[in-house]
Amino acid sequence: MAKDQLPSRSENFAEWYNRLVLQSELADYAPVRGCMVVRPYGWTLWENITAALDSRFKATGHVNAAFPLLIPKSFLEREREHVEGFSPELAIVTIGGGEVLEEPLVVRPTSETIIGHMYAKWIKSYRDLPVLINVWNSVVRWELRTKLFLRTTEFYWQEGHTAHATPKEAEEETLRMLDVYADFAENEAAVPVIKGKKSESEKFAGALHSYSIEAMMGDTRALQAATSHNLGDNFSRAFEIRYLDQDNNLQYCWTTSWGLSTRFVGAIIMVHGDDQGLILPPRLAPYQVVIVPIFKDEAQRSQVMEQIEAIQRQLGDFRVKLDDREGITPGFKFNDWELRGVPVRIEIGPKDVEKGTVALARRDRPGKAGKQIVSQENLAAAVAHLLDDVQNSIFERAKKFMDENTHRVDDYEDFKEVVKSGWAEVWWCCDADCEAAIKEETKATSRCIPLDQDGGSGVCIHCGEKADQRAIFARAY
Amino acid sequence: MAKDQLPSRSENFAEWYNRLVLQSELADYAPVRGCMVVRPYGWTLWENITAALDSRFKATGHVNAAFPLLIPKSFLEREREHVEGFSPELAIVTIGGGEVLEEPLVVRPTSETIIGHMYAKWIKSYRDLPVLINVWNSVVRWELRTKLFLRTTEFYWQEGHTAHATPKEAEEETLRMLDVYADFAENEAAVPVIKGKKSESEKFAGALHSYSIEAMMGDTRALQAATSHNLGDNFSRAFEIRYLDQDNNLQYCWTTSWGLSTRFVGAIIMVHGDDQGLILPPRLAPYQVVIVPIFKDEAQRSQVMEQIEAIQRQLGDFRVKLDDREGITPGFKFNDWELRGVPVRIEIGPKDVEKGTVALARRDRPGKAGKQIVSQENLAAAVAHLLDDVQNSIFERAKKFMDENTHRVDDYEDFKEVVKSGWAEVWWCCDADCEAAIKEETKATSRCIPLDQDGGSGVCIHCGEKADQRAIFARAY
Repeated sequence: MAKDQLPSRSENFAEWYNRLVLQSELADYAPVRGCMVVRPYGWTLWENITAALDSRFKATGHVNAAFPLLIPKSFLEREREHVEGFSPELAIVTIGGGEVLEEPLVVRPTSETIIGHMYAKWIKSYRDLPVLINVWNSVVRWELRTKLFLRTTEFYWQEGHTAHATPKEAEEETLRMLDVYADFAENEAAVPVIKGKKSESEKFAGALHSYSIEAMMGDTRALQAATSHNLGDNFSRAFEIRYLDQDNNLQYCWTTSWGLSTRFVGAIIMVHGDDQGLILPPRLAPYQVVIVPIFKDEAQRSQVMEQIEAIQRQLGDFRVKLDDREGITPGFKFNDWELRGVPVRIEIGPKDVEKGTVALARRDRPGKAGKQIVSQENLAAAVAHLLDDVQNSIFERAKKFMDENTHRVDDYEDFKEVVKSGWAEVWWCCDADCEAAIKEETKATSRCIPLDQDGGSGVCIHCGEKADQRAIFARAY
Repeated sequence: MAKDQLPSRSENFAEWYNRLVLQSELADYAPVRGCMVVRPYGWTLWENITAALDSRFKATGHVNAAFPLLIPKSFLEREREHVEGFSPELAIVTIGGGEVLEEPLVVRPTSETIIGHMYAKWIKSYRDLPVLINVWNSVVRWELRTKLFLRTTEFYWQEGHTAHATPKEAEEETLRMLDVYADFAENEAAVPVIKGKKSESEKFAGALHSYSIEAMMGDTRALQAATSHNLGDNFSRAFEIRYLDQDNNLQYCWTTSWGLSTRFVGAIIMVHGDDQGLILPPRLAPYQVVIVPIFKDEAQRSQVMEQIEAIQRQLGDFRVKLDDREGITPGFKFNDWELRGVPVRIEIGPKDVEKGTVALARRDRPGKAGKQIVSQENLAAAVAHLLDDVQNSIFERAKKFMDENTHRVDDYEDFKEVVKSGWAEVWWCCDADCEAAIKEETKATSRCIPLDQDGGSGVCIHCGEKADQRAIFARAY
């Protein structure tokens, strides 16, 4: 596909997103409705995300394991809210090995139930606690309206599942992992987020309460970028996950679960991208640097390529792509790698060879403003510095955008205006009926009740009842 | 479970295996028949296997991607042999989102078909070739007789799928990946293997021909440890995977696929394990070193723990586990870590504190023979040396065992004896009926026709027809 088919973001944000995902070869539509193929460029981005998260999980004491894809249907029915939440979305295996199964199996929509079953078997005593396990896998939820990365029938994620001796430890774990997600989002993906508690109607099916990190996309809509759930003793009671405490009394465990999915790739696209295409955060980009050689004839080519070899050796610590495709102009290559969001581009032509220089272009500032001529000596230091600068600049830009488009209003008419093109941070009574009415009237939902509150109190933006907390309302993905 | 429940290998190899997998906490039975849960200790081993393979795949130019779990049933029917091979093993989703699906979806048993469909869409010209993609995922094949790691309804693996312009390139790729597997098996897992071609009846359903690496387990039975398939143009014709060559002619691609699964964990257990439990190869072991403190009172404890802290700092480059569990004797810990196969154990007690020493025990030589007292100075070098030595020693031991139990025989009566407790390497006509008769009469199947042949010719061990190649026959897992 030619790049000029990409519409501008202001023209049609949704179409800009869909075409960009396809044209940059992050993902493609699968032949099964609602499913996606994650292409190598997109999967490498996801691998970098998983590596950054996995090291944080391990640093906080977690280990990985694997649980089956297929779950007996009856397992889902043991926790009332859980079954109500997930039943409409299930893919169900009814035939196995040529025979109709006695009990149908569901393709996991999430693994609380089967993991709960195993924990009940493994956990005997307080000495076995806490159990801190994470799983990298894919899950299936039958979706009617799908969108690549944001909402697909099968998606990739990690799901952490922990069991603790006390409700206090479970709550601490839930908040610890929320912090891990926020740290990852801001420091690896350069995506600013608000940490907060979900409302009753937005919480996970079966949770005591849920927390999320919420990010503002380039069209000001909100995206729930990761969630962390305190499951209380709901699943422990449903699956009999119990332990003998130090006084030899049988106690229920307190469990948590938390997840971040390939949805986050959608956040990276929509937070940072511009009309030229993707802008990938240097810490996660599949290629941090692309080198484009410029020459007119074979003599120039061999001079340029010789210096590129030396440059590649010097840049051994970075993820570097040399674009040595033949029969394609440098201009085409510039556009191509801009579309694909490579943070830094190195151009080198005959004049650079002569002067011992290269042109260094930063993706987040297209055109001349983002281009500088630097010496080939100490190029590694210049590239390291520039990558850091891009990482910080795109974070600051996104933060500014989020701040500028978040408004505190006290009047419902103002609220209705604000949520058309931004977030409203307003006093709210936290009542479910009140939330439903707001959604009906404005299409905005409560995204979260930020953990960071100024204190004080006010009256609910909708019903006028007393309210102790501000919540963020926005239209959401 | 107590360790003394583990039977000896000579007593009951199958039961030794089953109990060892459970007691060492590598895996557990899942509530769905034939499925397994891979516990953290087993999954960490698998993660180390994946890392060693993945770096080899990337070094040979491959990239990772992800394809959907659910495949339209009609896709499997496009390649005749493929559908015949896999139909009896399918798990089929017939209900999605509460409704009966128009076309049932199969849970992937392998991904040639859906990947073929996507390749047909992506590949246009010779410039797009070769396509070298690998996938890490799980697949489902309905199995009647299952065994943890060796044969489970769902198993974890990687599947490589490549497309090439010529049959020659496809064959080169197929053999390249066979070499990658053999290199991994021997140099990372210390598992000696024979590289060879599969017979017509043992090849992959839909392949032109298949290659495998075969390993000898501790009971002399063979295990197919990885396979690499040249698919010819079978899948290209079924899915219309075509490219325009340099002369603008439309040509079919030539494809390959290759895989290694969690089955390989079973090979590691059965090749190296002894009556005390697992012996894990140092390069892949979740923990390479376990430290067991020895003390009688609090004063001793604090002295010992202080030196252990210094030792841990010194051993920062290794995967080290400190077993500081309370209320458990050192002897119990020794047995526990022997069962779990940690290659090197460090014991440190009050006398060691005094003398600045530790006791260093190697798992592959239990008892006094494998124990030495070494200085705490340069402990890191001593540990590195010992880990290398364990890695080499267990490979040599396994190689010797395989060689000693592989016999060249020319008489069918001798053959029948040999395959009761070893491998037979014999002249064979390669005829399918001949193979079926041998299997019927001896329970041995052709494992592979080794690539490494001495030359010459002889007469088939069974039918007496002229034979140009020797094949390995054995009872197999």
